[in-house]
Amino acid sequence: MKILCNKTDLAQGVNTVLKAVPGKTTMPILECILIDTTEGEIKLTANDMELGIETVIDGQVLEKGKIALEAKLFSEIVRKLPDNEVSIETDENDKAFIQCEKAKFNISGRSGEDFAYLPQIEKSRNVSLSQFSLKEIIRQTIFSIADNDSNKLMTGELFEINGSELKVVSLDGHRISIRKIELKEEYDPIKVVVPGKTLNEVSKILTGGTEDYVNLFFTDRHILFEFDKTLVVSRLIEGEYFRINQMLSSDYETKITINKKELQNCIERASLLIREGEKKPIIINITDGALELKINSVIGSMNEDIDISKEGKDIMIGFNPKFILDALRVIDDEAIDIYLVNPKAPCFIRNEDQSYIYLILPVNFNVGG
Amino acid sequence: MKILCNKTDLAQGVNTVLKAVPGKTTMPILECILIDTTEGEIKLTANDMELGIETVIDGQVLEKGKIALEAKLFSEIVRKLPDNEVSIETDENDKAFIQCEKAKFNISGRSGEDFAYLPQIEKSRNVSLSQFSLKEIIRQTIFSIADNDSNKLMTGELFEINGSELKVVSLDGHRISIRKIELKEEYDPIKVVVPGKTLNEVSKILTGGTEDYVNLFFTDRHILFEFDKTLVVSRLIEGEYFRINQMLSSDYETKITINKKELQNCIERASLLIREGEKKPIIINITDGALELKINSVIGSMNEDIDISKEGKDIMIGFNPKFILDALRVIDDEAIDIYLVNPKAPCFIRNEDQSYIYLILPVNFNVGG
Repeated sequence: MKILCNKTDLAQGVNTVLKAVPGKTTMPILECILIDTTEGEIKLTANDMELGIETVIDGQVLEKGKIALEAKLFSEIVRKLPDNEVSIETDENDKAFIQCEKAKFNISGRSGEDFAYLPQIEKSRNVSLSQFSLKEIIRQTIFSIADNDSNKLMTGELFEINGSELKVVSLDGHRISIRKIELKEEYDPIKVVVPGKTLNEVSKILTGGTEDYVNLFFTDRHILFEFDKTLVVSRLIEGEYFRINQMLSSDYETKITINKKELQNCIERASLLIREGEKKPIIINITDGALELKINSVIGSMNEDIDISKEGKDIMIGFNPKFILDALRVIDDEAIDIYLVNPKAPCFIRNEDQSYIYLILPVNFNVGG
Repeated sequence: MKILCNKTDLAQGVNTVLKAVPGKTTMPILECILIDTTEGEIKLTANDMELGIETVIDGQVLEKGKIALEAKLFSEIVRKLPDNEVSIETDENDKAFIQCEKAKFNISGRSGEDFAYLPQIEKSRNVSLSQFSLKEIIRQTIFSIADNDSNKLMTGELFEINGSELKVVSLDGHRISIRKIELKEEYDPIKVVVPGKTLNEVSKILTGGTEDYVNLFFTDRHILFEFDKTLVVSRLIEGEYFRINQMLSSDYETKITINKKELQNCIERASLLIREGEKKPIIINITDGALELKINSVIGSMNEDIDISKEGKDIMIGFNPKFILDALRVIDDEAIDIYLVNPKAPCFIRNEDQSYIYLILPVNFNVGG
């Protein structure tokens, strides 16, 4: 194999597929990036068997062939090369010779034949949205997936399409995050659970432009993201997702409207009095016109009033401050509405058209402190 | 005690003295910042017994007194307060009440009486230089102190003043870094060894302006840095520093002039082939007009030619690439001169007026690889 390409293109392509290289594996071939030019273009691939990424870069194929190169080393070499034309040439022993200006590297590769290709995805059920929208909707929900594997479905996000609506849901047993966006077209219903890891990695390589589109394709077992010259294929998480609709009652006893930034700053201050690992709730006391936030820990105490407008009953309720903060940090509205029922029932942060709903379970607290 | 001050001033003052708060200690009082207003101004102090920092901030003293507050918690609270006026009030039980806008914190402090004051330094032997110069000369030498305590003197830097010249030296057994600057005045001779930790922390709080000055005062056991409204006092390292002059022969067999950035980039690329913890030299082969850099490791091999101008003999010599890189990274010259004697003797990177001298010991290598 022999190729010529630009250092910048190569570095960008390598960086894209690098997201699918596993940190640790017992199969050394998975730690590699495949360079495959057998079809006359320069295709880079990485694949950890759950998640695979493939991207095509500009350049000249002088001799067709393929080789698998250790991803970390190869990416570091590419990054440190001068900004100029790079040539990569391999021999029959899978040695790679990389040259750029006067810098010449010889490294050992592995046979490209040993590399596991991405599964072929039938491109029938296609959904299109902007890279910006996809990146945003992931950011606005990904924080409430569970990070352990005790319930596999909780480590992923529900992607549900009905007509022209895409709904994304994540939950971890203490809270539920729901975001909805309008798509430009109507689609047949789809309901799949995508691994959180896949969404995190896809997020990082999406450029995020509002004019750049990404096509999603679904099969029973896989999701394919197609954008720019890149394909990301991931297994889906199998099983039936949680029925959340019964938890989303819109009855409430108290509704408040509050400045989001003020509440966020105030909870961040209160969190300073909680030692790491300590489970100390913040206590929110809502009366006419004011929300008083209090915390009383072994470190000290803190309280602060925030002006609000309120409908309904007074209420005193306790929360894990992290759960409220996580939701507030991904809401862009200046003022938000919070709906409460009683100190044992979940509270809802949601907007009028319910394009976002954040359900958070309260925690018990001692009135004394 | 009761004070009023601006959040920004307070945060900056706290951040300054925080550099002298030890990470771990068995004496909880050392983990505190002292607020002392007994002299009518707001003075913040931290002191780990080796290094102490004191700074005065603007503000009003409404009631004189003092209190010691846990540094980490206090600094985090201050940082998260709204940008407005802060009031700090203490009671007879050393409780502190911190208020800013509607945020109110109650935290427990410790009696200011238990706090160890900085040693009084007689301000007789004074040296003045710009903050910029001090910060630069530290940055340009600090990397070659030794980080373990097997020889205490190697963990500090020699500060030597002769007439109007300040010379700073650090060494770790493999290399020596020397920087000299001209001071604006003549001074009596001074020769002290300042702990590396002190210099690192001082560097961080110097604003680094060329018009902002710092005064250094010396006693037999301490150095005092005085700048802005801040005092930094540090113990000196006792003992006689190494005699380095006998190592600084200016004889050489080979002199080369090379583009610094090209050499640096090339060595950075070569370093990619060295696994962490592996001691693999780079081999430099100098002939007329060219320097060839080679490395041959278990990972692969690399070589690169760089154009040079050369006087004297051809030479092939091996180096630990890190030692060369550390020196190159702090040299601002576009082209540098390197002086060599033989493959067993140290090489010197130095400029004509010897305002910098970097001595680096070579390492053995096998010609074959």
